[in-house]
Amino acid sequence: MSRTRVHNFSISLDGFATGEGLSVDAPFGHAGHRLHEWMTATRFWHGLGVVEQGEGAAGSTGADNAFAERHEHGIGAEIMGAGKFGPPGWQDDAEWRGWWGENPPFHTPTFVLTHRPRPSLPMEGGTTFHFLDASPAEALDTAREAAAGLDVRIGGGPTVVRDFLAAGLVDHLHVVQVPILLGRGVRLWDGLESLEQGYAVEAVSTPSGVTHLTFTR
Amino acid sequence: MSRTRVHNFSISLDGFATGEGLSVDAPFGHAGHRLHEWMTATRFWHGLGVVEQGEGAAGSTGADNAFAERHEHGIGAEIMGAGKFGPPGWQDDAEWRGWWGENPPFHTPTFVLTHRPRPSLPMEGGTTFHFLDASPAEALDTAREAAAGLDVRIGGGPTVVRDFLAAGLVDHLHVVQVPILLGRGVRLWDGLESLEQGYAVEAVSTPSGVTHLTFTR
Ligand SMILES: NC(=O)c1ccc[n+]([C@@H]2O[C@H](COP(=O)([O-])OP(=O)(O)OC[C@H]3O[C@@H](n4cnc5c(N)ncnc54)[C@H](OP(=O)(O)O)[C@@H]3O)[C@@H](O)[C@H]2O)c1
Ligand SMILES: NC(=O)c1ccc[n+]([C@@H]2O[C@H](COP(=O)([O-])OP(=O)(O)OC[C@H]3O[C@@H](n4cnc5c(N)ncnc54)[C@H](OP(=O)(O)O)[C@@H]3O)[C@@H](O)[C@H]2O)c1
Repeated sequence: MSRTRVHNFSISLDGFATGEGLSVDAPFGHAGHRLHEWMTATRFWHGLGVVEQGEGAAGSTGADNAFAERHEHGIGAEIMGAGKFGPPGWQDDAEWRGWWGENPPFHTPTFVLTHRPRPSLPMEGGTTFHFLDASPAEALDTAREAAAGLDVRIGGGPTVVRDFLAAGLVDHLHVVQVPILLGRGVRLWDGLESLEQGYAVEAVSTPSGVTHLTFTR
Repeated sequence: MSRTRVHNFSISLDGFATGEGLSVDAPFGHAGHRLHEWMTATRFWHGLGVVEQGEGAAGSTGADNAFAERHEHGIGAEIMGAGKFGPPGWQDDAEWRGWWGENPPFHTPTFVLTHRPRPSLPMEGGTTFHFLDASPAEALDTAREAAAGLDVRIGGGPTVVRDFLAAGLVDHLHVVQVPILLGRGVRLWDGLESLEQGYAVEAVSTPSGVTHLTFTR
């Protein structure tokens, strides 16, 4: 059975998944890189080819890496929001092809939810961006079909993750709480009272200082 | 040197330290007892005399208890807010003497911040309630004097803890994150951007499912 999963979704202690002041130079606004330092330190991240490294040895291989790696396994499609795909205003730029260069790290059909859809954008390495104006449930049906029996990842940002949670569509949620207070930005948890009641919840802190929360059903 | 400490301060994943709908029958509103189940399960709590128990053996003695016990050590005075001292409207009830009966579990001078102060209220067991209309810094000076070289505990609720944090007056903050989403109530973390920069922060999850966060300077 194809499941819907969120992985490596990083928030501050006060619940913000991104900062204020998003721009092409600041994809996370005033949060900078702080929400993802736990992840960029892992071997998983180094193995993505995002970091220039020699063979093999780079990156941590402990608990943070074990969580981080799960991002990849068994995923046949991703759904993301317009706010993850580009900086505010990317819809007015016909040349915008996402943050990730010509070979994005998705390697599957990738559905971008937007009220201003455009034609599909085939990239290298198996990623094709499709642009959808659809409800979360409809988008999930479409992505599931494209995933051909594999799981669908909800890639963020917070608005989209929250909408899918509120609609009861998420089977596995992995949130990483980073010990910083951002004070402003976009919150993950708003309007999700009693979410835990539909899930088994676990928390585990790791030596890097973050706490991994998993909601599973 | 006398330090200012917060202990066993429990919040939901979405940051609420109390729910909505506070009343004499619901001191935590719709949160009920859920924020403190981790604590009422400990030997520390059973030893307070709040729970009817036989001698000695009751309550857990693991990590949650180790944290919980620290509430007591070396404290010479407490400061709390009007919202902790009683339900909304207690200021109109000349008979209100707090939630805790004739022998409250403070056993020190206890300063209640309120815009409607009343005469001091000596209780059994060493607790005297004093009512103060004063800034956090002034209240801390007064409490520190009463504490005679011992530490001052900021007992809550969230408004008062937040105000003392914002004023830079807290030396040790112990927050317990409970894996529930309350959705509404009073948040702890609002307006505390970059708080972590003044502290060493640690996180540790325990088998009960909560995560203990300590901010120490
Ligand atoms: N912390 C993390 O782990 C993490 C992960 C991923 C991303 N991020 C960050 O999160 C930020 C973006 O998050 P966000 O919450 O602002 O935006 P988002 O969730 O990425 O996207 C929300 C936007 O997507 C479009 N959209 C959403 N649902 C739709 C629907 N059903 N139909 C049509 N369009 C829909 C709307 O944009 P339009 O109306 O403009 O089309 C909406 O404003 C970025 O800073 C990104 O870097 C963080
Ligand atoms: N989660 C936990 O571990 C924990 C711990 C303790 C309490 N609680 C709960 O927290 C709730 C109460 O929290 P809260 O944030 O609503 O209220 P609170 O922090 O207890 O008290 C805030 C009130 O205290 C008075 N006050 C604060 N600062 C003052 C100052 N400088 N000078 C004069 N008066 C001042 C004001 O009341 P007036 O203007 O009305 O006088 C203010 O509205 C209760 O539900 C309680 O059970 C939770």
